[in-house]
Amino acid sequence: LISSFLVRISFPFSIGHRHQQTTAKRVEEVEFDGPCMKTEVPGPRSKILAQQLESIQSVVQVNFFCDYEESKGNYLVDVDGNRMLDVYTQIASIPIGYNHPALTKVMTDPKNMGTFVNRPALGMMPPEQFSEKLVNGLMAVAPKGFSRVQTMACGSCSNENAYKAIFIWYRVRAGVLSFFFQVPGCPDLTLLSFMGGFHGRTLGCLATTHTKAIQKLDVPSFDWPIAPFPQLRYPLDQFERENAREEARCLEEAEDLIVKWNQKGRHVAGVVIEPIQAEGGDNHASFDFYRKLRGITKKHGCAFLVDEVQTGGGSTGKFWAHAHWGLDDPADIVSFSKKMLTGGYYQKDSFQPDKPFRIFNTWLGDHTKNLLLTEVIKVIKTENLLDQAKRSGKVMLEGLYDLQDKYPHLLSKARGIGTFCAIDVKDEDTRNLLLLKARNKGVVLGGCGTQSIRFRPALVFKEHHAHLFLDIFNDAIAELK
Amino acid sequence: LISSFLVRISFPFSIGHRHQQTTAKRVEEVEFDGPCMKTEVPGPRSKILAQQLESIQSVVQVNFFCDYEESKGNYLVDVDGNRMLDVYTQIASIPIGYNHPALTKVMTDPKNMGTFVNRPALGMMPPEQFSEKLVNGLMAVAPKGFSRVQTMACGSCSNENAYKAIFIWYRVRAGVLSFFFQVPGCPDLTLLSFMGGFHGRTLGCLATTHTKAIQKLDVPSFDWPIAPFPQLRYPLDQFERENAREEARCLEEAEDLIVKWNQKGRHVAGVVIEPIQAEGGDNHASFDFYRKLRGITKKHGCAFLVDEVQTGGGSTGKFWAHAHWGLDDPADIVSFSKKMLTGGYYQKDSFQPDKPFRIFNTWLGDHTKNLLLTEVIKVIKTENLLDQAKRSGKVMLEGLYDLQDKYPHLLSKARGIGTFCAIDVKDEDTRNLLLLKARNKGVVLGGCGTQSIRFRPALVFKEHHAHLFLDIFNDAIAELK
Repeated sequence: LISSFLVRISFPFSIGHRHQQTTAKRVEEVEFDGPCMKTEVPGPRSKILAQQLESIQSVVQVNFFCDYEESKGNYLVDVDGNRMLDVYTQIASIPIGYNHPALTKVMTDPKNMGTFVNRPALGMMPPEQFSEKLVNGLMAVAPKGFSRVQTMACGSCSNENAYKAIFIWYRVRAGVLSFFFQVPGCPDLTLLSFMGGFHGRTLGCLATTHTKAIQKLDVPSFDWPIAPFPQLRYPLDQFERENAREEARCLEEAEDLIVKWNQKGRHVAGVVIEPIQAEGGDNHASFDFYRKLRGITKKHGCAFLVDEVQTGGGSTGKFWAHAHWGLDDPADIVSFSKKMLTGGYYQKDSFQPDKPFRIFNTWLGDHTKNLLLTEVIKVIKTENLLDQAKRSGKVMLEGLYDLQDKYPHLLSKARGIGTFCAIDVKDEDTRNLLLLKARNKGVVLGGCGTQSIRFRPALVFKEHHAHLFLDIFNDAIAELK
Repeated sequence: LISSFLVRISFPFSIGHRHQQTTAKRVEEVEFDGPCMKTEVPGPRSKILAQQLESIQSVVQVNFFCDYEESKGNYLVDVDGNRMLDVYTQIASIPIGYNHPALTKVMTDPKNMGTFVNRPALGMMPPEQFSEKLVNGLMAVAPKGFSRVQTMACGSCSNENAYKAIFIWYRVRAGVLSFFFQVPGCPDLTLLSFMGGFHGRTLGCLATTHTKAIQKLDVPSFDWPIAPFPQLRYPLDQFERENAREEARCLEEAEDLIVKWNQKGRHVAGVVIEPIQAEGGDNHASFDFYRKLRGITKKHGCAFLVDEVQTGGGSTGKFWAHAHWGLDDPADIVSFSKKMLTGGYYQKDSFQPDKPFRIFNTWLGDHTKNLLLTEVIKVIKTENLLDQAKRSGKVMLEGLYDLQDKYPHLLSKARGIGTFCAIDVKDEDTRNLLLLKARNKGVVLGGCGTQSIRFRPALVFKEHHAHLFLDIFNDAIAELK
């Protein structure tokens, strides 16, 4: 990584920068040249704002307040003027960095004004450009095998409605007559999900979410089958046989559950799974595991729903993480949100209810997000950001391997695809301390699972950002003794 | 209603206009001077667009495609150039008409750009102006007794999370220990809802929604108690004694259900109800009914959730429909969406979970909607639009009374508060035919229940719009023979 044009980055505090930038930046790429920390985070202004907000809302989850006008590219600026390299991106939901000029252009185009100030009921009275924006947006990046998409407002609504589409499909397929005016039959169908999976927090989604106890506590739920998710041992190449055995055990148990629940009349209409269990701790399984799971769903007539809410949008180096699996037969439904800006799901034709108002709500998403997404997709293609994610991810993962070699008592299980990386810290308290230390040195990170750190940079995160991140992260770790 | 400045309105087709406009319009108020129909609706362009969309999405619910750039004030323009008086407003979700200059200004203000292109995770990294916009927006119109608000993306998510807040509150109140790391207890708590009620279509909401069979068919649900909602006889002044008896019966049954379900250990944590059952057919109950229901919830320790998703925002002449009731003790939670542009709910302090991530998701709403709502509220106050809704509502309701006197074989049960009005048609087919006839004459209307028409104009709907609507509606009815 030899630079042809060196740029020295200066920090007011002790933030190291030992890696060199790889290329001179083009003018339009100029963002900030590094973090710049003026206070601890949260700083005094953030604290005052939190006090004000506290009289209206809970602030127990608030990290700090941001200046979104001043933020740019990979850098998030807070209200105390601290400028941080953002490797968390609003819980993995900012696709191409802050204030990307392509998005600003969408907002200032007078042609789009009518869309932004008049929110249509998209299912009843869509705007003239609706199809066109879907074709150039969501459908332009549809996973292999999908020609239909339904937009929704957020990730939870996407999964809730995808679940409904599965139940309706299952009953139609089973030949159950669905007459319009009969007393509603709410059958005792089930969905199979996995321990450690996260699919949202509304009541239907929550029945399939199994990450932290606090998320489900005190809330009534559906009694649905839950299969174990493989607990792989790292480094993967040293535990090939053990891991294969673990995956086989989980698949066997999943299939057993389907058979047993079908036998007791509580049929498993579908299986829902993430390509990487993100909130649950960045738990990976092999591509082979997923291919075999797909086979099991086919064998037992269950729908196969891949939840790409966090993994979708390109950070794994492919637009959809499940595209890495090489499925012979595509999934049945793929749900998304976050970096896609709009929620929704792709579905096979047979999952489209034939009767109106079975899948419906007032807004069915927000067309303003389709306009923005169309531009995001253009930028991803024009700037080859999927390849960028592969390259930056390689730097990150190799750097994480180096760090865990350097600090084996603190770090383990460096893992990832593209920039969708994670590492484990020895325990939860140390993990949380490390997150704070890194933030005060100018890097925003997020935790997941009990003791993992997840790395979720935007797609405009380049190799030099990865080096910068690794330097600062190294400094933060070094301070843990 | 004597006009000081007569404006003749001309229509290319046979749209009558016998009422005169009441006042000269100020320049900034100039919208279109009436409907203008060029084709049947949907017209040829709408049909072509529907064919295009059909390859991607279900279009069975699509009425027609709109030109949102050309729409203005109370007039919705479709892609065939038909200009219609909109008395449905995207399922009651457009607060101050199309392309209101105050909203356009929000969008073109460079200060707001950062908010529109960078969607924050509001619960973790809110923008600097977050508190301020909540104070000048949602909190400026908070129902009596509420000082806390939680934003959400849509109506369903609002109710789903309000339900969770109720369950958590109920368990904390009951002294159930909620330790962080215990295995999640998902207790068999319930919510009591009413026949004919509508609270959304996600799985939790759907368990409390009881309008049309097709909405629930084939989808697993919770077994929760359902009370009868009063079936009032009209005209109300002729059936006072019968209606009082009917309401007493429903209250008694609701209380019985709470007692019985508590006794069998499936405790009723809360009661959820709309001030007017909108989707269910614009079913009203007396204010006294609601006051007594509130008393029952207090007596049995149930939370009282008022779902103002459709009724909130001013069309009843008060900002919140339940403000008409004159409750001694405020509700516990009030949910909203639609005309509020953002979803969410107000809650009493005791419903705020003390621990983080019990009520949470990535976006927790969309701050762009808070910016727009702040301006909507300013316009409502500056232009006295709540009084406007009372005045226009009076014209509408009196006109509907006249129409049902004129066509007693076709129309009945004219009812409403403010412009939130409805009327029943003799049967479903005739109702549907009347909706189409009115549309082809330039008035957009929506149905509800099995045979009702609901009127949901924007708050900028003035007396002269009400007269115009009544004229056209009369012409459409006259054609039914």
